[in-house]
Amino acid sequence: MTSPIQFHFDFISPYGYFASRRIEALAARHGRAVDWRAMLLGVSVMKVMGLKPLMDTPLKGPYTARDVLRHAREHGLAMKRQPSDPVMNPLPCARAFAWVKHHHPEHAAALAHAIYAAYWGEGQDLSQPASLRALALPPGLSADAVAQAAAGDEAASLLRAMVDASLKEGVFGSPTVVVDGEPFWGVDKLDQVERWLARGGW
Amino acid sequence: MTSPIQFHFDFISPYGYFASRRIEALAARHGRAVDWRAMLLGVSVMKVMGLKPLMDTPLKGPYTARDVLRHAREHGLAMKRQPSDPVMNPLPCARAFAWVKHHHPEHAAALAHAIYAAYWGEGQDLSQPASLRALALPPGLSADAVAQAAAGDEAASLLRAMVDASLKEGVFGSPTVVVDGEPFWGVDKLDQVERWLARGGW
Repeated sequence: MTSPIQFHFDFISPYGYFASRRIEALAARHGRAVDWRAMLLGVSVMKVMGLKPLMDTPLKGPYTARDVLRHAREHGLAMKRQPSDPVMNPLPCARAFAWVKHHHPEHAAALAHAIYAAYWGEGQDLSQPASLRALALPPGLSADAVAQAAAGDEAASLLRAMVDASLKEGVFGSPTVVVDGEPFWGVDKLDQVERWLARGGW
Repeated sequence: MTSPIQFHFDFISPYGYFASRRIEALAARHGRAVDWRAMLLGVSVMKVMGLKPLMDTPLKGPYTARDVLRHAREHGLAMKRQPSDPVMNPLPCARAFAWVKHHHPEHAAALAHAIYAAYWGEGQDLSQPASLRALALPPGLSADAVAQAAAGDEAASLLRAMVDASLKEGVFGSPTVVVDGEPFWGVDKLDQVERWLARGGW
């Protein structure tokens, strides 16, 4: 039996969005499942690494905006939100994800896809728990229940545990794919991840 | 007539070393020449962007060391210097490069390859102008002359102009490839650069 590959992502990360669209097919080609893990760039990048937000970094911010739009165009991905738009508070979405993963693990990936599609694809504001009511979710997962959970203490506590675990594993960026303990950071690494899976490392 | 693609690099960057081994064949496949441009991460990253050195950044430093060694293994590249080793003062090498590019442009790429091979491949210390005397250079380029030039004012001034120009173009990382004004940062972007060249953008 092989282990699932871990897919660490932040909803505010456009590169996480891009990679989320490829990770399941990639994993499936190598007989792997995907373990979806929400992380928070605000914690890893700002608190632990002591860096400023990417988009506020001179030179790198403008480059990143350009790179994100170029990536979306190349892959034909919907992107109504601009990378230079103000960043939402990611906590309601990330808490909702942590809660669903705990209570309805079979729907965790669908929720992540729904949030990414709404936020980056459609440009919706998901910064309030109530805004999650508008998400298009699979039968069996109530958007009202998700929105309510996102405002509660249990979701906050589940997310804290998930974020602490990702930091402990050394994850700092979105997306990060971990294959049997081997971390790969960045959507640009997915081809290398695939070669690693195919060869079993090198 | 197509323009050369610009290849911006810092000698202290292992990713610049990796990309330097592929850039000429990549460009040639699309009928392009390569315009080699030395830049200084110490100026762009630390002074302009206000970030700490990559290897001193929590989480990202250890990840990068692992990623660099993994990349070298995958591509079979010699690497006697460890990414976690202390970083040399890049000025003598970069000044030598700027001087050779100005006076012997036909040897600029060969000098860059020789420095990268000696520093990263063989683990030599090239932090003093005199250390450049040991470089394996093509006939017509005297290592003694290069070492002497690296210690002089003209080379320093030529490098300053080259670094200023790269900053003005928004280049901040090593390697950065610029195709007809379109910047691509990182060795992981070389496949995308190749698709961009093949399609003429998108």
